[in-house]
Amino acid sequence: MRDFLPADKARRERVLGVIRRVYRSHGFDEIETPVMEDSSRLHAGLGGDNEKLAFGVLKRGLTREDFEKANDALDLADLGLRFDLTVPLARFYATHRADLPAVFRSIQIAPVWRAERPQKGRYRQFVQCDIDIIGEAGPLAEVELLLATSATLDALGLENCTIRINDRRLLIGMLEVFGFTPDEHAQVLITVDKLDKVGESGVVAELHERGMTAAAVDALEVFFARQPAGPLPFGVEGITAALPAGVAPDVISELAALGAAVDAARGTDAAALVEFDPFLVRGMGYYTGPIFEVAHPSLGYSLGGGGRYDGMIGRFLGSEVPATGFSLGFERIVDLVDLDEEETREAIALVHDVTVAPQVLATLKAQLIAGGSRVRLARRGKNIKALFDALAAEGFTSFAFVSADTTTLNDLEVRSLSA
Amino acid sequence: MRDFLPADKARRERVLGVIRRVYRSHGFDEIETPVMEDSSRLHAGLGGDNEKLAFGVLKRGLTREDFEKANDALDLADLGLRFDLTVPLARFYATHRADLPAVFRSIQIAPVWRAERPQKGRYRQFVQCDIDIIGEAGPLAEVELLLATSATLDALGLENCTIRINDRRLLIGMLEVFGFTPDEHAQVLITVDKLDKVGESGVVAELHERGMTAAAVDALEVFFARQPAGPLPFGVEGITAALPAGVAPDVISELAALGAAVDAARGTDAAALVEFDPFLVRGMGYYTGPIFEVAHPSLGYSLGGGGRYDGMIGRFLGSEVPATGFSLGFERIVDLVDLDEEETREAIALVHDVTVAPQVLATLKAQLIAGGSRVRLARRGKNIKALFDALAAEGFTSFAFVSADTTTLNDLEVRSLSA
Repeated sequence: MRDFLPADKARRERVLGVIRRVYRSHGFDEIETPVMEDSSRLHAGLGGDNEKLAFGVLKRGLTREDFEKANDALDLADLGLRFDLTVPLARFYATHRADLPAVFRSIQIAPVWRAERPQKGRYRQFVQCDIDIIGEAGPLAEVELLLATSATLDALGLENCTIRINDRRLLIGMLEVFGFTPDEHAQVLITVDKLDKVGESGVVAELHERGMTAAAVDALEVFFARQPAGPLPFGVEGITAALPAGVAPDVISELAALGAAVDAARGTDAAALVEFDPFLVRGMGYYTGPIFEVAHPSLGYSLGGGGRYDGMIGRFLGSEVPATGFSLGFERIVDLVDLDEEETREAIALVHDVTVAPQVLATLKAQLIAGGSRVRLARRGKNIKALFDALAAEGFTSFAFVSADTTTLNDLEVRSLSA
Repeated sequence: MRDFLPADKARRERVLGVIRRVYRSHGFDEIETPVMEDSSRLHAGLGGDNEKLAFGVLKRGLTREDFEKANDALDLADLGLRFDLTVPLARFYATHRADLPAVFRSIQIAPVWRAERPQKGRYRQFVQCDIDIIGEAGPLAEVELLLATSATLDALGLENCTIRINDRRLLIGMLEVFGFTPDEHAQVLITVDKLDKVGESGVVAELHERGMTAAAVDALEVFFARQPAGPLPFGVEGITAALPAGVAPDVISELAALGAAVDAARGTDAAALVEFDPFLVRGMGYYTGPIFEVAHPSLGYSLGGGGRYDGMIGRFLGSEVPATGFSLGFERIVDLVDLDEEETREAIALVHDVTVAPQVLATLKAQLIAGGSRVRLARRGKNIKALFDALAAEGFTSFAFVSADTTTLNDLEVRSLSA
């Protein structure tokens, strides 16, 4: 968990402002949920491994007796801090469905918490930027998500990003063609998900070690060997060629159409590449259709990802509602992005002696603010150069000395700090 | 704890945007701290009664044995959710002092949590908007806080507010003149703080009940009886007249100068009245100098308040640092304020049949967004009037039908939703 000093905080708010503006222009609406959810909801099996990382919040008014009777942490914690924004969204939608549009496009930009072991680049409090479309079963929803994501990457000046796309149904179809049994699928996907880290031989070795059907592992090994190098073209032919023969042709057509719609709509200015990746898995077990991930060449991990999770909201609502979403990892993005300050107001420092009356300083300050400036009082110290440097670093563009002789704005000589 | 739907969330963000902009124009800088602080820090005696309301966060990896050994909740919780923004600010300043300006003017706009019993108008998660000035010992700091606060109330269109001012040193001086003993001061202040609720006779009765020096209570009763009705003029004469004879004349001069500076600097447009209130106490024990509170005629409680707390930061830092701050209760303000939407972009709904290809919809949408609009896809249903009403309520200003015949922007007829 980190503190953010003024310059960092301002940078973060600028980047969030861009993300929020692009998402809103794409017709999404921002909502907010409380940071705490009921423990039972956080531990309902929808959060995968993240559930184990949820911070529990102690019940109020517990006594020594309650501690003695407690078997595990959940007996003492009725609330917890959210570990993602998807579980709260599902709960939100189930609660407020009647007040929301038939197809609900939500923005959530908010912190989540995970009790990770502190390590470089991992934080226990971090911000996620999620967009989700609830109530749209067709690939139009994915097209809208990917368009909004691509436009956001462009607006942030993040060039060279790749949006990798796959579909859970193609993954399952591929495993079936290789001959893995249905009860092996979950474990095989967990292992395949490590492909980037351990390589093809590592995946094959682990699958054998874990005792998966040997003939199926052999078929996967053969398939690995005949994979084309380099990015796979997005289209029916490209996707078909990248998969073993016979995998769900209807899903291939749908995915190719999805990619074509995104490419056509984005036009030629869009920087991010859209690629098919037959081995993209995405960790969470709740995905049911198209899945995606954004990669950046300078990072060993993704900038964000998402996919369709048609079953989840039904868990809260009792009736099935289609849903798909995309989450950007804000902390990773803010480190890559350098946006110029958007402040257009003049920022003036009134550098004053201690002898100047508060009333004079306050009046000059209020009058300059009324004229449209941002104004900071700064007491004149021994080292005027250090003060000027600090003010410039804090975004101040000009200054004026205020002494005991200064009484009105006419007595002020506003000068540039950079001169 | 509450969810915020799109319209509410947008309203909240608009109000926060105004507060942030005014605070920034007055030379304050925004910072951010994690929502969790060490329990030891939250329970160091600086939070008054709020400490009891802190949510504790369970340590990770606790076992049955840990529960059995636990004597109280703090044995199981090493972190807690902050109950205010002042304790985190003191910790932040102590940590980062070397990287901050000699006089540091901070903005914190963030949620805090208190385990209150749920009741109308009280929430367990709520947003506070704090400005603080650290490192400035003189009344110039209070003048800046009050100017920024008054300007914020004006920018929010909150007319008829009153800023009530007092000084802890005048309160103590008054109690000394009446003849209360030093060890009675804390209790007397707690009782006097209830003046608005229980009235003068209620205060006198409670002080007798609690066995405070009887002659002192009698002196207070006589003083109550000779209090002028109505607001007290702010100035040396007015303040002196409103206090028993002999109370700290130097503090009176300082406070009168402070009020005069605020009034002179604000000019004649400022809506909020600035008043002296000899019985304003403010609950927290850490206040050491001027204290203030904002009242609004429509509310039985204050919109915000603050004061000087010179001793607190020294508790974290080991050396004394002067500080003063002002906190606005955002939830109370957002209920009173009605700001117009600032959105200047055209908001267009593309109302489409299910037969339209995703690629066409996505391309039309992207082109309209590129032209500067906010665009929402909306599937045409049976009840077109209900759809139009909902879109208008969500801020959409125009629409265009998209059918299977529509292929380019030229085929679109964009019409006003209000016509």
